Amino acid sequence: MTATELSGRTVTVFGAGGFIGTNVCAALSLAGAKVHCFGRRSRLAIPYEPQSWFEAEFTDIDAVKAAVAGADFVIHLLGGSSPAVYNNAPAQEVMANIIPSLGLLDACRNAGVGRVIFLSSGGTVYGPDVMTPTNETAPTNPISAYGIGKLAVEKYLGLFHHLFGLDYRVLRVANPFGPYQLPNRGQGFIAQAIQCALDHEPIEIWGDGSIVRDYIYVADVANAVVRSLLHRGDERVFNIGSNVGLSLLDVISSIEHVVDKSFDITFLGSRPVDVQCSILDTSRAKTSLGWKPQTDFLYALENTKNWLISYRGS
Amino acid sequence: MTATELSGRTVTVFGAGGFIGTNVCAALSLAGAKVHCFGRRSRLAIPYEPQSWFEAEFTDIDAVKAAVAGADFVIHLLGGSSPAVYNNAPAQEVMANIIPSLGLLDACRNAGVGRVIFLSSGGTVYGPDVMTPTNETAPTNPISAYGIGKLAVEKYLGLFHHLFGLDYRVLRVANPFGPYQLPNRGQGFIAQAIQCALDHEPIEIWGDGSIVRDYIYVADVANAVVRSLLHRGDERVFNIGSNVGLSLLDVISSIEHVVDKSFDITFLGSRPVDVQCSILDTSRAKTSLGWKPQTDFLYALENTKNWLISYRGS
Repeated sequence: MTATELSGRTVTVFGAGGFIGTNVCAALSLAGAKVHCFGRRSRLAIPYEPQSWFEAEFTDIDAVKAAVAGADFVIHLLGGSSPAVYNNAPAQEVMANIIPSLGLLDACRNAGVGRVIFLSSGGTVYGPDVMTPTNETAPTNPISAYGIGKLAVEKYLGLFHHLFGLDYRVLRVANPFGPYQLPNRGQGFIAQAIQCALDHEPIEIWGDGSIVRDYIYVADVANAVVRSLLHRGDERVFNIGSNVGLSLLDVISSIEHVVDKSFDITFLGSRPVDVQCSILDTSRAKTSLGWKPQTDFLYALENTKNWLISYRGS
Repeated sequence: MTATELSGRTVTVFGAGGFIGTNVCAALSLAGAKVHCFGRRSRLAIPYEPQSWFEAEFTDIDAVKAAVAGADFVIHLLGGSSPAVYNNAPAQEVMANIIPSLGLLDACRNAGVGRVIFLSSGGTVYGPDVMTPTNETAPTNPISAYGIGKLAVEKYLGLFHHLFGLDYRVLRVANPFGPYQLPNRGQGFIAQAIQCALDHEPIEIWGDGSIVRDYIYVADVANAVVRSLLHRGDERVFNIGSNVGLSLLDVISSIEHVVDKSFDITFLGSRPVDVQCSILDTSRAKTSLGWKPQTDFLYALENTKNWLISYRGS
């Protein structure tokens, strides 16, 4: 895939105003694509020029249809907030995510969209009982309604492909971090931890700090999205992660190094929604997509810290 | 498991009035259970005495709550009609099955139900790209909204077990046939075919007759449900089938033998919803549940024919 191949192509990004969305739209713009945005508009200054912005709810099917009209590609980044939110109300997750995702797929099919890219969740779709590093053929037994919702949308993509020829790729992304991830949203441990460090506040963590996650820099994720748009090959589901597992305490130690300060830690009880260890095996993405994680972890933390400082100062 | 263990226990059966439901309720009654029924009441004479019948829609959450109150066990047989129905409207499947199933699980959790048995679909949850005979660890990539809905309910059962301790078993049933399966509903090829034979009418089949299915006699399915209620062991998902694959033409030939008449066949186009070959490996059920298919196929066909004749004469 070269930038030329995306040049002038129209891409509609659902969830464009969020953390990953902002990074994906910036990468698409850099590759020459015409980027149309759907969803809540970012309150932050954004590093690209959108062609249009559909500020609507995902459940607004007319707005969804309008946003995909004429799109060569659609990128679906919507899917609720964090895994912990919906477990006491899984039906709400279905109504907020699965139902409107089906509306989106239907709209894409009717509009003749060339490919849909769906960002799924490598940290939740597999569940607790898998080998790590986990590859894409592992069993999928999520322990959150969030993960079940992601998995259901993956399956519906397979159905729409089978029945109607709608092309798609699924990226099961590990724990992304980097610029435009805001602290205080319960979304990203790293953004939250850096903020605590900058503010000399204790960091709260769930469990004893031994939970292991696979942290992937968001620019690497955006790169995977761009590659998946023009991917040629039979594989359709790809893990996107760093291949490296870090405990919360490992991450805290790295952040202490980057900010040159030490932390106080407040240990909270563990949450039933958290698997103990999640590390993705990304060899399929390497072989088939030509993608691999490229950004050094400490360098990425440094970038994240610098962005957070500039964001807080703005 | 002995009949004594079920004696006097209260079981609420969702979908009691259907084909499988009637057979399951009869088996539960025989085992001494107190059977409460939910759903459309059967128009047929039924071979057991229900304790009560909640004639309500599955979406009526108050009726669902009333039906599970005081139940030791709940059996969930609801899940829409045939696989072909929902593919042009998967969101309808979600609203008709997934959402009310979540309501049912919530009601079971709150009522302290001891175990939920869910009848899933061995013929659709795996999809077309699996080895046959297929065991429970095979990948699950359904090519029908019906199959995705079944799979989603399986995953939510796993979630409710993980989060709230709600116990469950899933039976992935192959193609059931037998008494109380009505022809002309698009549900069962065997009932339809026997009816055509009795009426000297040509039988219509999708494709060229080479499609292979795993036909399991409904009394064997009912037996598996009874066993799963009191199963002790760590496995929770079981294939329930005959372990034998028969093509449509094989089945027609056996029916010709049983009714002592030959068929005319009308070949229709193949349907995208049909996988070419579905045969379940039931060794897990044998090992862990102590269950195996017991009824000889020709004997089962004979019973089915006799029931159909008496049904048509009534």
